Amino acid sequence: MPYYADDSTLEVTPGNVIAWNQEETVRTLPHPDAQEIALDQVLSALADPIRRRIVTQLAGGHDDQACIAFDLPVTKSTSTHHFRVLREAGVITQRYRGTAILNCLRDEDLDARFPGLLGAVLAAETEPSGAPAGDS
Amino acid sequence: MPYYADDSTLEVTPGNVIAWNQEETVRTLPHPDAQEIALDQVLSALADPIRRRIVTQLAGGHDDQACIAFDLPVTKSTSTHHFRVLREAGVITQRYRGTAILNCLRDEDLDARFPGLLGAVLAAETEPSGAPAGDS
Repeated sequence: MPYYADDSTLEVTPGNVIAWNQEETVRTLPHPDAQEIALDQVLSALADPIRRRIVTQLAGGHDDQACIAFDLPVTKSTSTHHFRVLREAGVITQRYRGTAILNCLRDEDLDARFPGLLGAVLAAETEPSGAPAGDS
Repeated sequence: MPYYADDSTLEVTPGNVIAWNQEETVRTLPHPDAQEIALDQVLSALADPIRRRIVTQLAGGHDDQACIAFDLPVTKSTSTHHFRVLREAGVITQRYRGTAILNCLRDEDLDARFPGLLGAVLAAETEPSGAPAGDS
């Protein structure tokens, strides 16, 4: 499976020289449509603590955070794997800016498809209740 | 790993004969305490469609449903595996009644530990929204 579809465009420059249009080069990564986001994959993706850490950072910060902005206790290739799992599950979008990959949380898509799920996972991640249950 | 801890009790009968006390035999299966229920394991357990089917049936029906009451499209050993994963994750309790194993959803424990999570998963399972997202 290709890591990205290289549908970069070629452009004829004023000097009639074929060159890469660096600004408009479109290197896209595959994402599921919002309606195709599957519960199995989302729950699997969120079952990993490193991936929840990524999601929590995206939820708490600004959009378009580059992969290198995440301080994760794993190798670069493992980190790349985790981002890919999140993207393929429909939890995040990833897009290129130059050589960097920018990440966004698909919170609206997830909330539309599985209302309350992402919020419950984020809440559980950030404030796990240690209170004994069942004594009410 | 033993499937159950056999801490059955022996009893001295009036006739001074050692016998199994069939009524009071306690065959217990290991369960995590409510405070030990881990998000990784819960999400992993719920990421499987067969296990969500079990959870959905338990949520919609009465407590103490025997394993054989579940019509699952898998072999008995696979079914046993799925129930065990749910129990070890803290999603259900299992206890023996005679040779049957009765199952209960730990909804109170889960809700105390991860508020809203089980409800969101059950809602997603029973009424997945197919509406396009992000057009609000």
